[in-house]
Amino acid sequence: MTNPNPLAASASAHLAVTQSEAAPDVIDFGLGHPGPDLLPLGLLAHAAATRLQGDDSSLLQYGHEQGDGYFRQALAAFLTRHYAAPVDMDELFVAGGASQALDLICTLYTQPGDVVFVEEPTYFLALRIFADHRLRTVPIATDGDGLIPAALADALAQHRPSLLYTIPSFQNPSGVTLSLPRRQQLVALAQEHNFLIVADEVYHLLSYGAAPPPPLATYAATGHVLALGSFSKILAPGLRLGWVQAAPQHIQRLVNSGLLDSGGGLNPFTSGIVRVALEEGWQDAHLTHVRQVYGRRANALTAALRAQLGELVSFTAPDGGYFHWLTLPEQYDGEALFRQAAAYKVGFRPGARFSATGQLQHCLRLSFAHYDEAQLAEGVGRLAALLAKNG
Amino acid sequence: MTNPNPLAASASAHLAVTQSEAAPDVIDFGLGHPGPDLLPLGLLAHAAATRLQGDDSSLLQYGHEQGDGYFRQALAAFLTRHYAAPVDMDELFVAGGASQALDLICTLYTQPGDVVFVEEPTYFLALRIFADHRLRTVPIATDGDGLIPAALADALAQHRPSLLYTIPSFQNPSGVTLSLPRRQQLVALAQEHNFLIVADEVYHLLSYGAAPPPPLATYAATGHVLALGSFSKILAPGLRLGWVQAAPQHIQRLVNSGLLDSGGGLNPFTSGIVRVALEEGWQDAHLTHVRQVYGRRANALTAALRAQLGELVSFTAPDGGYFHWLTLPEQYDGEALFRQAAAYKVGFRPGARFSATGQLQHCLRLSFAHYDEAQLAEGVGRLAALLAKNG
Repeated sequence: MTNPNPLAASASAHLAVTQSEAAPDVIDFGLGHPGPDLLPLGLLAHAAATRLQGDDSSLLQYGHEQGDGYFRQALAAFLTRHYAAPVDMDELFVAGGASQALDLICTLYTQPGDVVFVEEPTYFLALRIFADHRLRTVPIATDGDGLIPAALADALAQHRPSLLYTIPSFQNPSGVTLSLPRRQQLVALAQEHNFLIVADEVYHLLSYGAAPPPPLATYAATGHVLALGSFSKILAPGLRLGWVQAAPQHIQRLVNSGLLDSGGGLNPFTSGIVRVALEEGWQDAHLTHVRQVYGRRANALTAALRAQLGELVSFTAPDGGYFHWLTLPEQYDGEALFRQAAAYKVGFRPGARFSATGQLQHCLRLSFAHYDEAQLAEGVGRLAALLAKNG
Repeated sequence: MTNPNPLAASASAHLAVTQSEAAPDVIDFGLGHPGPDLLPLGLLAHAAATRLQGDDSSLLQYGHEQGDGYFRQALAAFLTRHYAAPVDMDELFVAGGASQALDLICTLYTQPGDVVFVEEPTYFLALRIFADHRLRTVPIATDGDGLIPAALADALAQHRPSLLYTIPSFQNPSGVTLSLPRRQQLVALAQEHNFLIVADEVYHLLSYGAAPPPPLATYAATGHVLALGSFSKILAPGLRLGWVQAAPQHIQRLVNSGLLDSGGGLNPFTSGIVRVALEEGWQDAHLTHVRQVYGRRANALTAALRAQLGELVSFTAPDGGYFHWLTLPEQYDGEALFRQAAAYKVGFRPGARFSATGQLQHCLRLSFAHYDEAQLAEGVGRLAALLAKNG
């Protein structure tokens, strides 16, 4: 087949611009990146031209620590439309992406040795950020409705966590969404035991069927939720632009950090440009577009897995986010499969990487975001061949 | 007089976009910000249009962890021209500004309670970043040639610092430049006592007379120097774009952090645009321009201070950077003067804010970067009136 990834071809011939890319002839379900066809270059060219013409150079100056007021106003209006719940610009803090926000929260709210509760499974690179801050991660069991409140209550009997890190909607890696009753129980437990919930809601707006329950951001007024959002999945990851939605005392704590005071706002130039995309409705239109495309891709991967691996793997068909989470019979070892995968020109993330304790060896995370439907089906064929060899 | 600061006027009428601004009729020497007339909006409009036309969307994807290779190649060539010493792109790591780089270095290289050596005086907001990481700062005395090696040797007899933070060229706040012999002695002491030097060299390229000695970045190969650079002073602060120059083992440590692995490079979109300014020589031309303008402003402030306050204040006329550091007779109290300054429609930073131990009460930091020559002279007149009232 032809090259599924034009960027990889150019990266191999030239200097690296993008993060780890698959070899040109590999279909790598491991990449949690938008496909190059979904990166809105024209939209951003238009937004940049609009914002940079004229004589308002304020986006080039040291920025307001909380973030450009016009940008936060436009973002609050956008979120209010899509959350179906009012969002106030004063609750929003502009960050350099959700990862940067998580890193800053770790600096300000934790000490080395502190306990952070994480879902089992959880986002493997959040585990890396916690490790850099020398935090101890304690896994909390999940099921098809997300984090299990009884498991959380048990863990709270043994630990006093500084933070609980959750991905409530279309979880990475499991694709699962936390149910509404459990959202309420989780917030109640945070209030009762006085810990902070860091809710990584970067997939919340990427729903392809029924909308998920209201985001944990809507519980910000309790003072126990710091909700992270990002333009990485709804516009472009290279912008490094995200936000925190939280109660005023938390916004003040972020704003008053030395990093913010020294550098000014975290991304004044880019937020000044993306402001145009929000104000002109281009972000809404692009979100509609990517939801349609990703919805088709999710369905295509579901169909291919059922057709070619239906007897072997179990999974819940996702109706949002980026991921299928496959459970294989227990004798399979994801890392062993991973080492053989290149020979089959296919890739994925072994399940154990998403476990705070190295469990879940017989699981695999597949992303459908980066490839078109034909490529996804072709990739599943290669995965089937790999699994057949190891059956 | 007329409004010295168009941004402040618009900020007061609308939503805040920029960091703390002076009231429209105040001349605030405390602002270490470029003047609005020096923010190159047209240059960036041109660079953005150039980079965003066509079909290369790679700057919108998750970025290479070390930073866009083409950008680092162009940056290495730019630094090689201006440092008069070869800089290799492999020694460069792209950061979201020098403050962000300093914050990341604190996360990866320190533990709470560790000792950081700082110059006395030093950059007050670096002290805030160290405080957020719960580090203990120990001041090292400086004189007209910068950090005093004998004072450093004495401190090393008592402490084992994780880091030494220095601003070797056109220091903030003192304007002093570390001499060449002392640069060599400092690096030798770092090798002997095995500590890391974090060299904040954001003013190094802003020389208005003789060039300073080669930057501490040129000692990166020793493995004991992490040198920070930034586009904030030479292009625009709102870009939040800087770099670290260091030996390969340090570059790898930064690249391997959870923050970088999760988010991709720290500023792919903006570095993709600034790449054009570097490649096309626009950054070189703008640097020439700002050096001419700032050089005139430095001289104007020197002349006004000598003419109006020559008997009262002592200072070394700076030939680079952003700052004049004034020493008043000991009976003056900078914080007391600061509280009265608004009534005289003038501003500055009290000296004690730059001391790790609250000393230097009789010193003031004045920046000449934000105002034109007539405004600088007018501001000195107001300062003279304030000091006369307190004499």
